[in-house]
Amino acid sequence: MILIKDLKHHEGESVTLKGWLYNKRSSGKVKFLIMRDGTGLVQLIVFKGNVTPEVFETADSLGRETSFEITGNVKKEERAIGGYEVDVADLKVISESHDYPITPKEHGTEFLMDHRHLWLRSKRQWAIMRIRHRIVKAIRDFFDERDFTLFDPPIITPNAVEGTSTLFETEYFDLGSAYLTQSGQLYAEAGAMALNKVYTFGPTFRAEKSKTRRHLTEFWMVEPEVAFYDLNDDMDLAEEFLEYIVQSVLKDRAEELKILERDTSKLELVKRPFPRISYTEAVEILHKNGVDFEWGEDFGAPDETIISNQFDRPVMVHRYPAAVKAFYMKRDPENEKLALAVDVLAPEGYGEIIGGSQREDELDKLLERIKEHNLPKQYFEWYLDLRRYGSVPHAGFGLGLERTVTWICGIDHLRETIPFPRMIYRNTP
Amino acid sequence: MILIKDLKHHEGESVTLKGWLYNKRSSGKVKFLIMRDGTGLVQLIVFKGNVTPEVFETADSLGRETSFEITGNVKKEERAIGGYEVDVADLKVISESHDYPITPKEHGTEFLMDHRHLWLRSKRQWAIMRIRHRIVKAIRDFFDERDFTLFDPPIITPNAVEGTSTLFETEYFDLGSAYLTQSGQLYAEAGAMALNKVYTFGPTFRAEKSKTRRHLTEFWMVEPEVAFYDLNDDMDLAEEFLEYIVQSVLKDRAEELKILERDTSKLELVKRPFPRISYTEAVEILHKNGVDFEWGEDFGAPDETIISNQFDRPVMVHRYPAAVKAFYMKRDPENEKLALAVDVLAPEGYGEIIGGSQREDELDKLLERIKEHNLPKQYFEWYLDLRRYGSVPHAGFGLGLERTVTWICGIDHLRETIPFPRMIYRNTP
Repeated sequence: MILIKDLKHHEGESVTLKGWLYNKRSSGKVKFLIMRDGTGLVQLIVFKGNVTPEVFETADSLGRETSFEITGNVKKEERAIGGYEVDVADLKVISESHDYPITPKEHGTEFLMDHRHLWLRSKRQWAIMRIRHRIVKAIRDFFDERDFTLFDPPIITPNAVEGTSTLFETEYFDLGSAYLTQSGQLYAEAGAMALNKVYTFGPTFRAEKSKTRRHLTEFWMVEPEVAFYDLNDDMDLAEEFLEYIVQSVLKDRAEELKILERDTSKLELVKRPFPRISYTEAVEILHKNGVDFEWGEDFGAPDETIISNQFDRPVMVHRYPAAVKAFYMKRDPENEKLALAVDVLAPEGYGEIIGGSQREDELDKLLERIKEHNLPKQYFEWYLDLRRYGSVPHAGFGLGLERTVTWICGIDHLRETIPFPRMIYRNTP
Repeated sequence: MILIKDLKHHEGESVTLKGWLYNKRSSGKVKFLIMRDGTGLVQLIVFKGNVTPEVFETADSLGRETSFEITGNVKKEERAIGGYEVDVADLKVISESHDYPITPKEHGTEFLMDHRHLWLRSKRQWAIMRIRHRIVKAIRDFFDERDFTLFDPPIITPNAVEGTSTLFETEYFDLGSAYLTQSGQLYAEAGAMALNKVYTFGPTFRAEKSKTRRHLTEFWMVEPEVAFYDLNDDMDLAEEFLEYIVQSVLKDRAEELKILERDTSKLELVKRPFPRISYTEAVEILHKNGVDFEWGEDFGAPDETIISNQFDRPVMVHRYPAAVKAFYMKRDPENEKLALAVDVLAPEGYGEIIGGSQREDELDKLLERIKEHNLPKQYFEWYLDLRRYGSVPHAGFGLGLERTVTWICGIDHLRETIPFPRMIYRNTP
């Protein structure tokens, strides 16, 4: 038995394939069956004269998604899907499939989501999952090649980084309430003090009541954190990182991007250097475009689209008003009102995919911020220890995996970028 | 600035290093400082005659974990830690550290766990984290090289695979209770039908009230699942996988294993083929060793140790009594009382690290099992669909990451193998 993806190494040979019926059509004495095996699609030719009457009959009666096995000869055929065809000599059904729920007609999203376990078999979902995997691999390879140490932060945490209203809560034995993590960053900072360069990469959770196409309640985030890095180092890392991811996918997932009809010319442009503009310059762009926007506010999605539309590649917006950013960000020594933060906005209106900053490394200032933000100091004692015992400048960022997959795939909604999406109104199958 | 791990490329050069004081000793006119920077340790020599009086004074007063920067000349020195020393010309403190809580004296485990964010800076914890990372990388590389697609299963799930008594529960908006996943396997089966070979790799949760050294409430598990695989294919995959992991760590983490004083000769033996014995043969081993054990029971940890002690490498025990195994396992066609299951027991008493099986692929039989186990059928409708629409033989297994790290590191307790362990009595820091 061989896999469909390996047909190219078996031209002219007799092979056995196992898979599922993806589609079929008939033309008198010949049946064309499209088989999928999870590694690709191939057209199988069943000539009436080449097989027994029973096999020809069986080929005719196969229902969609029936699992079956064939033996046949591999032929090169430029016009066929995947570039090869197989002339079938024998065919055996493994397990029948009748009335497969997903038909070639249009289905509503809810119906498809209810059948997510089957919907994943379709060509489009297959392509997205394979691109997701390639992105994950690029992310890990990037950091592994640069001597980062993986640092898996806890999922169950006793306290919250960014407020308690959007937390999933669980009872933790006799210790009371615990919460699902929203970010591994604070832990990653402890990791950077121990291991220099670290990255976290795991699921994070937000119990946000947002129904937008850009929100999942459960999503994967990668968060590098580096000792002795400042904001500039952080921006250098972020742009090298995004270029690496996009170029890896272009190189290895051309077929899948084609299935998604992705305009790859837009992705080819994702090369360093990326434009770097300050928040204040970004506000000027909004004003020039007639947006009524007050300096000091945070950008909304439409603002981000206007800003990113000025550029043909991701744009890095740095030095935000400290008031709209998190307590742990270091202030700009040249202007205390600004945080040494950076957001990276993807092109084509895909919005923020990276948020990062240099971290406050001075104990006194961090204590002040915790007070200003009315955070319970006792929960942060361990985090404050990182400033008590040999504090150093450090910086990092977070990249949302599903937003990145959405952008690179050029699709509309995050829900298709993860095998079993979790949204406010859905936690099944 | 360079990293300590790169000193070997800078022999005879003047370099700048930034890091933390790990240890120091004094001998009259010379101070020996051990600096760590998260990538390694290096001895710094501060000769009174080579530096200003202020620098010499500073070198004398540095507290443990003070962050500082030095400039100096790199010398090869076989006897020194890491094989190189630096003759310091200048030294500047970045941030002081006084009364660092972790001292060279013995601390109790609870104290160290309370200071986990600092404990991670110690040589031993550093080595374990770096080995953990190398194991994760080996796991991912192994599957990526073999055309598996990563398939991240949901963490928040509406139902339980193995009973509800050990589940963490959370309110999910208006949808009622949801639970943290205990295994991604059922979802991985849907993935295998769509993508052929898949693997999940993420955190899993068990709210077990076990206080043993082999239990964490939050741990990472990798679960490959392959369409058209039977139990033998599954065992072939498991043994190739374990050999790959262990040999990768031996190759790339020799220094870290030495820090842990690991007897690597035991790991070098982890090469294919592994012994394969049936459950019944394993029971005979117990009987020969005087254990009062009845055929049909499940093995306890002491039983596993006796069985694995018969072999110098991991042993695969297959074909367990179906009654002690999960509902989704296929029965042995040659003996309906047996499940086509395999557990892999690590050597040296480390117990089960892999549990796998061929899955029940027949709809009728699976329905029967769900009934026998009193499972709520409606939660499994989507899983049953995998048998309704083109079912195929398939198999997979799960490997617990922390147990694997514990074994390869040769340490006693799982709690040291993950940055911030979660146990029944601990969810902080």
